[in-house]
Formats: sequence, structure tokens, C-alpha cells
Amino acid sequence: MSTKRENIIKAAAKLFKEKGFAATSMRDLADSLEVSAPGLYNHIRSKDDILDEICFRVAHKFVVHINDIDSSELSNIQKLTDVIGLHVRMMIESPEETTVANSEWKNLSAPKREVYKQLRDSYEAKIAHLIQDGMHCLEFRKVHVPVAVYTLLSALRWIESWYKPERNITPEQLEKEVTALLVGGFLR
Amino acid sequence: MSTKRENIIKAAAKLFKEKGFAATSMRDLADSLEVSAPGLYNHIRSKDDILDEICFRVAHKFVVHINDIDSSELSNIQKLTDVIGLHVRMMIESPEETTVANSEWKNLSAPKREVYKQLRDSYEAKIAHLIQDGMHCLEFRKVHVPVAVYTLLSALRWIESWYKPERNITPEQLEKEVTALLVGGFLR
Repeated sequence: MSTKRENIIKAAAKLFKEKGFAATSMRDLADSLEVSAPGLYNHIRSKDDILDEICFRVAHKFVVHINDIDSSELSNIQKLTDVIGLHVRMMIESPEETTVANSEWKNLSAPKREVYKQLRDSYEAKIAHLIQDGMHCLEFRKVHVPVAVYTLLSALRWIESWYKPERNITPEQLEKEVTALLVGGFLR
Repeated sequence: MSTKRENIIKAAAKLFKEKGFAATSMRDLADSLEVSAPGLYNHIRSKDDILDEICFRVAHKFVVHINDIDSSELSNIQKLTDVIGLHVRMMIESPEETTVANSEWKNLSAPKREVYKQLRDSYEAKIAHLIQDGMHCLEFRKVHVPVAVYTLLSALRWIESWYKPERNITPEQLEKEVTALLVGGFLR
């Protein structure tokens, strides 16, 4: 991918996060990059095209990761730890893209939205399965699986609302602390 | 408070949650209540007035509750359990109002916003203090206090994004399950 296209996507993710996808115009995007609006169209087709790329790029990382975990021989405690780890790292490494994917995917065009929703549902189903397996192996205590999945994902998805690099904590510490808090709730 | 005013506030909370405060007009509100827009002004002064009432009503419940807990002689584990319990119950009993207060308080007029922010900061500080106290008494393991406060509150504030009465779980079960997951992360 060209650096110019990449820069456009980065700037768009920042704007979509700040103002929301619907309220961001191609003009806002051109202004933030200090280029002309027509100049943008040499690199991207539309605002929808950008949202599409942001959402599926983020989804791809989560899907590849959960599939790796799923097919591994790790304990369920370790699998859950790895799931949490990726969420925390994504929030630190690509906070804008990750937040936009989470908050704005419903604005994808209809067929893409359907595909995205299936990926999301399948991701949540794999986490549910991991938790069920952990209960079955007596690694985890008995929990209500949907409540556990969504409580976990809510805590992880909203890290972006409070984490700031200037909070006195390194990314490694953040990952360790969040993991201990959330995995702890599953232990017997 | 008059029933009419109460009905207006309920309908407004529903609309603010669905469409957002900024995108909701007095006309939308009048339409949803099947009354004339001028008729609304017999009961409320403005859209700001309604947001004000929703936010401070919700804040009041949380403030009274945390102060009761703060001055009680309960163990810190029980205090944390009670904090979580109120959040879950508020999400079940007043999901629209609670969500609107959480998501839209930044749209309060400037002086009110400042007061609300102070209440919110003070609420979070009291939870931080509770956690610190629990660590001091060796009821809780050593955690990074801000990470723990915000992970806890994120999990609780976003219950509204996934909880539906038709999910096969009673309010009491939900409270019990969420509490066990979240308190579990603090235990030694």
C-alpha cells in the first residue's frame, strides 16, 4: 500500500474517532491532511472505502489471533490471557483504528456490514467456547457464559475511553494488570 | 413532580439514548409523545433542562449510595459488591437515563458540566479509596488502582450495550454473575 493512502487512513481514523464517522466530511479529511479534496480521490474512492479498510484491517488481526489460539494446545487460562493481551495491545498500538472499528462498524455499507457482523459474532462465539471449555476442564469456575463474554469484552473495548499514555503505567504493566483483574474473575 | 413532566423526561431519555442528545429536537420529542411542541413548554424549559434533570437524578443515586457505603462498617469486599450491585440495578431499572447520563453529560451547559464532572471525579476517587483500603487490609491483592477503577467501571457502564431482558437471565442472576466476575479479580 502507498504511504499516501496509509496516511489518509490514519488521519481518517483519528477524525472518525474524534467527530464520529457520520459527522466527518471528505473536506474535513482533506483539511486535516492539508491537501485538496479532489487530490484525495487519487488514493481512495470514498469515505465508505476508508471505513471499510479500517474495520476489516482490525477485524483481520482479531480473527487471525483467535484462530491461532483456538487451534493451539494452550491451557484455557493461557488462551484467555492471550485474548486479553491482544485487546490491550491493539488499544495501545492502534487506538484510533480499533475504536473506530468497534464504534462505527454499523455504518459500513449493507453487505460489508453483514460480513463484519458475522466475523464479530464468530469471534464472540469462539471466546464463549473457550470459556465453556475452561469450565469443562475445571480450570474456570462455573460462570454464565454470555454474561462473562460481554463483561470481558466491555472492559476491554472501553480501555480507549480512559487509557492515556501519560497515565503512569507502561503498556506491559497495563496488559499485566488488566489480565490479572479479568482472568481472576474466572478462577475457582 | 407532575406525571406529565415525568413522562416527558422518560420519553426524552429514550430518544437521547437512541439518536443522541445533539440529534434529538424538541419536535422529535413532541412527536414521540403525540403532543404539540409548544405544549411541551408548559412542563419543561428546554432540551438542556431535560438533560440536566436526567444527569443529576442519576448522579444523585450514585452519590447517595457511595456515601452510604463509604460511611458503613462493611468489609471492603462487601463494599465493592454493593457498588457493583447498584450499577447493575441502575442498568436494569433505568437503562435509558443511566446510559444518557454516562454518554451525554459532556453536553450539559458549562457550569452544570463542571459540577457533574466534580461529582463523577469524586465518585471515582471514592472507589479508588475503597480499593486502596481493601489492599491495605489485605482483603484485596495488590492492583494498580486507576487501572482497576476504570476496568471495573468500563465493564459496568457498558452493560447497556449488551444486556437485553430477553437474554435468558434474571436481574438477580445478572447482578450475582457480574459481581462474581469483577470482585473475583481483586481477590488474593
